[in-house]
Amino acid sequence: MVTKNQIKLVVSLKQKKYRSQHGLFVVEGEKLVKELLREGLRPFKIFVASGYDSSGFGEVDQISTADLKQMSSLKQPNGVLGVFYMPEVNRNQTYDWIVALDAVRDPGNLGTIIRLCDWFGIKQLVCSEDTVDCYNPKVLQATMGSIARVNIIYTDLTTYIKKLELPVFGTFMDGTSIYAQKMPDKGILVMGNEANGISKEITDLVTERISIPQFGEPTAESLNVATATAILLNEIRR
Amino acid sequence: MVTKNQIKLVVSLKQKKYRSQHGLFVVEGEKLVKELLREGLRPFKIFVASGYDSSGFGEVDQISTADLKQMSSLKQPNGVLGVFYMPEVNRNQTYDWIVALDAVRDPGNLGTIIRLCDWFGIKQLVCSEDTVDCYNPKVLQATMGSIARVNIIYTDLTTYIKKLELPVFGTFMDGTSIYAQKMPDKGILVMGNEANGISKEITDLVTERISIPQFGEPTAESLNVATATAILLNEIRR
Repeated sequence: MVTKNQIKLVVSLKQKKYRSQHGLFVVEGEKLVKELLREGLRPFKIFVASGYDSSGFGEVDQISTADLKQMSSLKQPNGVLGVFYMPEVNRNQTYDWIVALDAVRDPGNLGTIIRLCDWFGIKQLVCSEDTVDCYNPKVLQATMGSIARVNIIYTDLTTYIKKLELPVFGTFMDGTSIYAQKMPDKGILVMGNEANGISKEITDLVTERISIPQFGEPTAESLNVATATAILLNEIRR
Repeated sequence: MVTKNQIKLVVSLKQKKYRSQHGLFVVEGEKLVKELLREGLRPFKIFVASGYDSSGFGEVDQISTADLKQMSSLKQPNGVLGVFYMPEVNRNQTYDWIVALDAVRDPGNLGTIIRLCDWFGIKQLVCSEDTVDCYNPKVLQATMGSIARVNIIYTDLTTYIKKLELPVFGTFMDGTSIYAQKMPDKGILVMGNEANGISKEITDLVTERISIPQFGEPTAESLNVATATAILLNEIRR
């Protein structure tokens, strides 16, 4: 059963404003919902469409396909929709490397970067206030369960970076090749906006200008921010 | 000016069948159209919306915004739509490393991989017949101008790989760490399908099973195929 008010609530959670207000977010699909449950995230409601196998979710609300369709962000809702409480952000997390995002706007890129942080054991991801919200449905679709395993903070990046007094790495065309650059045990890797790169203000805080060597014909193109992050995290960890 | 038949032709090019039939494909946006012209790709027609700056394109057809909207794949058409002849595939290209895609289905992933090949100087990209078409509008949006600089072949992958007699690298959970694996000067890097990985048939042809080490808590998740390609090409070139 689902009430009209619950449907209204779930639909409202498509907007960041209401997600923040209620401290709730939505994920869809059996695989992702089960993974978040396994990671210990606290469910608010799990809705399962009638006819869909509801075992293994714990307590569920069975609803009609029509009701699910009303709440879903997907063209083809796939049976399960989970509403979860946002996990508490651990601000005292221990970490070695931190990834800092300066106005990354594309949900797919953020999702991929969260997944990369998880893979490479980066516990702390710090996002500027104008980075896309990590509970955006498209981000969640791209992160898979990694959203539960990486500590994600939204804050003023300048203040945050200044306070830490760690080496700050940023990628620039004229930077030192990553093959020649020694990577310390601790540091901050800043990745910039898709179109404009790292902002002027954050550039001033970068202590190590690095670059990923290009082997093809030189062009004006740069690498996509998510693939560049993949290469850099691999270099940091190797 | 644009005729009704031309509009019909351009709209038909959204489908692979008609792209192959006519040997034509569509790109949108001033930046991409100009880059393909600069790379020497032969234009069939360049349509520019009235009011939009048409300089620097060579010969153009000025059309109304309404006509452009009819032809465009974008919700918000952005002034320029170019129809290009598909470049001839050079089957005698010299190469060192070849990337081979086994049923990669997501257009964004293929686009990103083409861009990575361009960046890392991989001249030859070989796709299985069931890999998404490289002239799909979403692929082109993600490749940027790289589509003009990488030689892309669609063929039967098994036959192709067998003929070359090169070491064949594939990523598997139980593979040798890429940090321990020596990369030869020449080889084939096979990347598999988003959901199923490398197919049984191609797995039998893999001579070097490799893996990208995971540093976070071990999970069932794997890396996205495009980010894995980024890391592997960086390892091959470094």
